[in-house]
Parts: sequence; C-alpha cells; structure tokens
Amino acid sequence: MLNAFTDVTADRARMQAAALDAARARGDAVPTLAAAPFAAKNLFDIAGLVTRAGSRINRDHPPAGADATLVTRLEAAGALLLGGLNMGEYAYDFTGENAHDGPSRNPRDTTRMTGGSSGGSGGAVAGGMATIALGSDTNGSIRVPSSFCGTFGLKPTYGRLSRGHSFPFVAALDHVGPLSRSVRDLAASYDAMQGPDPLDPGCTRRAPEPIGAGFDSGIAGLRIARLGGWFARHRLAESDAALDLACTALGVTAEAALPEAERARGAAFLITMAEAAEFHLPRLRIRPADFDPAVRDRLIAGALLPASWVQTAQRFRRWFAAEAAALFRHHDILLAPATPMYAPRLGTQAVTLDGVELPLRPNIGVYTQPISFIGLPVVAVPLWPAGQALPLAVQVIAPAWREDLALRVARQLERDGIACAPVAAFGA
Amino acid sequence: MLNAFTDVTADRARMQAAALDAARARGDAVPTLAAAPFAAKNLFDIAGLVTRAGSRINRDHPPAGADATLVTRLEAAGALLLGGLNMGEYAYDFTGENAHDGPSRNPRDTTRMTGGSSGGSGGAVAGGMATIALGSDTNGSIRVPSSFCGTFGLKPTYGRLSRGHSFPFVAALDHVGPLSRSVRDLAASYDAMQGPDPLDPGCTRRAPEPIGAGFDSGIAGLRIARLGGWFARHRLAESDAALDLACTALGVTAEAALPEAERARGAAFLITMAEAAEFHLPRLRIRPADFDPAVRDRLIAGALLPASWVQTAQRFRRWFAAEAAALFRHHDILLAPATPMYAPRLGTQAVTLDGVELPLRPNIGVYTQPISFIGLPVVAVPLWPAGQALPLAVQVIAPAWREDLALRVARQLERDGIACAPVAAFGA
Repeated sequence: MLNAFTDVTADRARMQAAALDAARARGDAVPTLAAAPFAAKNLFDIAGLVTRAGSRINRDHPPAGADATLVTRLEAAGALLLGGLNMGEYAYDFTGENAHDGPSRNPRDTTRMTGGSSGGSGGAVAGGMATIALGSDTNGSIRVPSSFCGTFGLKPTYGRLSRGHSFPFVAALDHVGPLSRSVRDLAASYDAMQGPDPLDPGCTRRAPEPIGAGFDSGIAGLRIARLGGWFARHRLAESDAALDLACTALGVTAEAALPEAERARGAAFLITMAEAAEFHLPRLRIRPADFDPAVRDRLIAGALLPASWVQTAQRFRRWFAAEAAALFRHHDILLAPATPMYAPRLGTQAVTLDGVELPLRPNIGVYTQPISFIGLPVVAVPLWPAGQALPLAVQVIAPAWREDLALRVARQLERDGIACAPVAAFGA
Repeated sequence: MLNAFTDVTADRARMQAAALDAARARGDAVPTLAAAPFAAKNLFDIAGLVTRAGSRINRDHPPAGADATLVTRLEAAGALLLGGLNMGEYAYDFTGENAHDGPSRNPRDTTRMTGGSSGGSGGAVAGGMATIALGSDTNGSIRVPSSFCGTFGLKPTYGRLSRGHSFPFVAALDHVGPLSRSVRDLAASYDAMQGPDPLDPGCTRRAPEPIGAGFDSGIAGLRIARLGGWFARHRLAESDAALDLACTALGVTAEAALPEAERARGAAFLITMAEAAEFHLPRLRIRPADFDPAVRDRLIAGALLPASWVQTAQRFRRWFAAEAAALFRHHDILLAPATPMYAPRLGTQAVTLDGVELPLRPNIGVYTQPISFIGLPVVAVPLWPAGQALPLAVQVIAPAWREDLALRVARQLERDGIACAPVAAFGA
C-alpha cells in the first residue's frame, strides 16, 4: 500500500526479539530501545541483503557482508530491524518517487508524495510500520519527508553520525539520521548511534555527548529567531501558517538574516551535481539505460560542469559557514519552514511560487539546501497548519554540535501540543 | 646581475640593525637569527611595498598594510629584511623566468635558470646576497630552485608554516618555507617561524616543536630508502649520480615503491590548473593582456576542465596519501632526485627524457609534484655530481610532521661533506 519497504527482515527481527526476551528472562537490564521496530533507507547495508540505494544497477551487487554502523548500533540498543526502505534513485531526489520500485506513498494521503529521497523512511514512520527509520540527508532528504509525511526528523551536524557501510551520494554533504514520531525516540535513537567510527573518514572523533533526558529540559533562556530574507520568500499559505504556529507557540518575535542564502542553494546544487556525476560516471558509461532517465540527465549535466564553478562554490561555502556562525552569536536557534508546500500529489511537475510557475522537484528544497550545505544540525518538527489535514514541518536549526538545543525546542513544541506525529490512519 | 631582487628595503634593514646593536649594548639577549640578512619571494607582504606575486597586474594594488606572518617572525628573531625577490608570474612556474621583471639568473652560471617559481630566492641565497630566503612551494617551487641554484631548502608539512599575508596560488597545495646555505640556518629559521596563525585558516593549531640542535643528532637507527618506480624513470646522468652520491654516503641499499606516482603528478596538475584558474578568472576576464601569455594559456585551459576530473583527482589524492603513509611504516626517510636535470640554460624549451623529447617546463617537476601533492615534508639537499660544476638536489622526504628526521639526514650529508651550498663566485 505505502510501498515503504523494499526488503523485509522478519526472521532477523523475530530472532532479535527472542534474544531480548531471553535476556529479560535472565534478569539482564533492558536496553534503551528494547523492541522498538526500526528500518533503514535501502542505502544502508544490511548483512545478507543487496544494498539497492534506490537503483536498478546496484541490485546486481553481491549482498552486503556486514551491517551499516548505525544499524549495528540501533540493534545493540535493543531495536528490532524490520528491513530496508524505498528511496529515490541514488538519493538524488526530493519526491520519494522511484522509477524501479514505484513511488513510496504518503500515509497522510496515499495519492501524495512522501518527499525524498528518504521517502520510505517517512512513510514507514508516519504509517506506524516502524518507530524509528534511518534516513540520509544531502540537501533535505530527511527534512522533506518529515515535512510531507508529518514525522520528526534529525539531520545532525555534518560528521556527527557515522556513514560507515552506507552507499554515498555526495560525500561532502551527506548526513545520516533518524525519523520518528516523538522527540523522545529521536533523542534516544540519536544517543544510541553517536560516537566515532573509523569506517567513515568524515565521522567525528569526539566522544558522544548523550542527550539523555535533556531534550525535555525546556527552552528557558534560548534566543530563538525566525529566518527572514530568502526563507521568507517562496512561501505558500501553508508554510507561512506552519512557521507562524511555531513562532507564536515559542513567543518568537525576532527575525534573523542569513545573507546570500539563495547563492548557498546554488552552490549546493553545483557541488551536488559535480560530486554525484563524478561518483556515478563509471556506471553512466556502462549502463546509461539502467538509470532513471531524469537522474541520468542530472548526472550528465553535472559531468559537464567546469571545475572553476565548483571551486567558486567551495570558496563561497567557507564564507557562508562563517556568516552563519556569526549569526549564532546573537541567536541560539533559527526557525524556517522545511518545505514551501504540503506534500504534492504524486506525479506533480510544477509549483507556483511567488507567482512564478517553476519545476516542482528542485524547488522542494529551497529552504533545506542552504542549511545542510554548511552542515548545521536541524530537527524537522511536524506542524498541522490546517488542523488534521496535512502536515508541514518547521526546521529548528542549531549551531554546529548543538543538536541538544534543537531537540529541546522541538520537544517544547511537542509538549505544548503544537507539534505531533500521530500514526496515520491510511485507507486501503 | 642575478636579478634576484625586485624590491630593496635597505632603510628598514639599517633600522633593524641599529635596534639590534642598541639592544646588545643594553645587554639584552642576542636573538637566534641576529643580523642574518633575509629576503622574501615577492608574494609575501612587506608593509609599505606592493606585493607583486610576480605579476604585472598586482603591482596596481595598494602597498601592503602589514608584513607577512613569516616576515614578522624572522624579524622578531633578529633577521634583517633586505627586500622582495623575483619569482615566476603568480608562482605558476618552474623556470624562474618572468615576463615582466626579466628572468632571475643562476649564480652558479648566469646563463642558466634559477628554477622556479622561487627563482629569486634560490639566486639570492646561492649568490650570497641573503642568508635566508622565503619561498613558496606548490608543486616544487622551493625544491627546484634549491636543486638548480645549489641551496638547502625546506618544504614543510602542508599547514605547518603560516601563509598569513601572502598571495596564494593553489590553496590546497601551497606551502611556504626557507632556503639557506646550511642545515643549521634552515632549522633555526624554521624554528623561528613555527606556530599557529589565525591569519592562515590552513595553518596548524599544534604548538611548535622546536628542532633546536636536534638537526645535528645523526641518523642512527633511521631506515632510509631510495624511491624506485616513477622516481627511477626520466633520470639524466646527473640526477642518477646525485642520488647515488647520497645513497652511498648514507649507506642506503633499500628501494621503496610509492605506487601510482605518475597518476599523482597528473592529479596535481589537474588540481593546480583548476584551482589557479578559478582564483585568477576575475583578472583573466578584465586584464587578459597583462598576463604572461604562457601563464594565461594555462589558466584558460584550467578554467575549461570538467569538475568531475578534479573530483577524481581529489578522490585519488586521499588514496595516494594513505599509500604513502603505509610506506612510512617500513621507512623513516625516502630519497629521490629533486629535478631530473641540472639547471638548463635560460630560454630552453625542450628536454629529452628516456629518449623522448618533451617540453621542458612541466617536466622539471616530475619528481617534486607527487610529494607536495600529499603535503609531506622535504628537505632539498644540494649535491655536486660533477665536482664543482653544477649542483643538483636530492629530496629527503619524511612522514608528515617529521621535519626533524629530514633535517637530520640533510645535516648528515652536509657534515660528511657530500652536500654543501657555498656562495657562488658569479662573474660580472
């Protein structure tokens, strides 16, 4: 129905559950995530399964010999792995549609997109099929499904969670993290996954800094602002309303300006296109017909970009990161919508923003790209601007390495009943 | 005669000398480099002078408002700044020729090249006009002039000496360091210049690890090997002889293989071309006719490179650095020639290597490029394969952050009378 799962590991889940039962019967301590069902976007390795990464080509690979680091860590904390989740081809996607496996469907309205590329992750969590789903986010791929499907989602600081044994998209921008239906589960799964990992050369060597119960410590003293400028353009009524809901609930009146966010988005596109093209070029040369044609076109375009443009983008990135760091001297948290719009209907090709008709897909990420571009941690918080109709998430953006602050603000919105992620009652 | 200097700071040197005299008269401690004359490649800022960086365009800039960090540090250690030194345009050079200021000339034979791009640095030190010269080395620009002019030269580990207030070439590959006529001066000036500097974001935050008298502690226990493979190709009789001299003196019989060094050189070219082009594009657009035509052509070619090639080069670089690190598990020092040939005559366009006639300029760096590409520290040690005729340097290559090992081996060769850098008796 939701087409969220591409692989099911039922036997493995049963064995893990039996082991948990046996341990409890022996009187062992019950681990923090005991018996929480989880699943992983199918770019995370699961031992014995072929890691599709949403592609046709990779399913000719041999099965993975080991689990992804984050899968291992969640399982070690007692969570039960249910399987692999549908995703956009090679994560180069904002819609959750997949040319080979079919689109994942949104549990809030199965005629609508889940958002991508972690579409199955959003669908599985919002649909009640998993308590926690692992996703990845290069330009918005955790935050967009969280917005469209109505789940909480954490895109951590770049380098904070290990990408060990996962299939990459753009190494310079790839983040991995959890989606869930509560801030408590988000924080608990994040704690279970923290820590260095030599398998990911980009992963921090810092010791974990557990959130524990800290997510529930309130927001007293936090200086919160809404982002203006670029982040106040392109809005539709629903994103305006969602941001207003959050700002009213949190008493936010300050507005902050992150200069050149539009340029940041352009630079994120350039780096994404160039890195992804370089990475996929060997496959493009040999098996062009086995790509989703739309992905193939983006990769070919990326392969033709001049190096000097990408170099300029990298140079700009350093400047932009410094501007953002400076902004955080005056604010602890910045708020912006995660998407301009509610989940569009499957197959939608265009959107009208600021009175201009634009292609839908690339414009889903207008607000997410400038933030992931510089690796800041974000919690996507699902709001319901029109009652129980459709969700739309707000990005709660913290300074680098301050996931704790973003989780506290997300929890405040949840505790106040402004944000929530109920299991969807999707029809047959 | 040598055309080594482009700017002379005689008044400043006299004032510094007077201040040193006054301090000594007061009984103050005499600083380590007291009264040592030094000069800086003209890409280092000297307050009050225009920083040419070997170009015509930059001499329309206003005078520098502050000294380069390394100039400040050498002066603080008592050295006397004599001025700015000739260099290849924007450091994109291996010959020491300059279309605007004329070629720097080799004190060992003034009809010959100094080597570039730190040509004036090699000329000033070998010609006895400075005890220490500052150079920069992106693909070989300290080691090549050391080889052609017969001086010691230190290209430190990438990031170990500050590039603060110097004009860049390729930020990812730019190193700065000293040339001198003795290992003692090399080590002393290096010690005076070590330490973090917020003005260079690529500069280490590690505290200085002074060499002190450690350079003279001998080579007992050091495992030294000569590099084979790529580094044994392209040799002319003189580079063969120089390496043999060093190996015989040090008792080296082991040979080590650094795989894919040829590819490393290609990747160094790609990154150099692309980064340099991106950096100079604004100037190329406005003042194309004011570039050296040969440099302009290289920059235009660089601007046309596809991003995916450069990305592949960066990916390869990580692999190659790991290979080199693995090699250093079995060796402490690796030896290779600095250049295939003696200093060619000015204006030479071609060289025959392995029986193939090749363009001279890019092939001067065949042995230096693969090493700077991964930021390893190197001391260039001048040898005299044919008695007192012309010098040719050997690269003494150490693992990252082990400048001390390279300096000890260089000193051993100097102490044994194999290596030396006498003042040249250049004729009028």
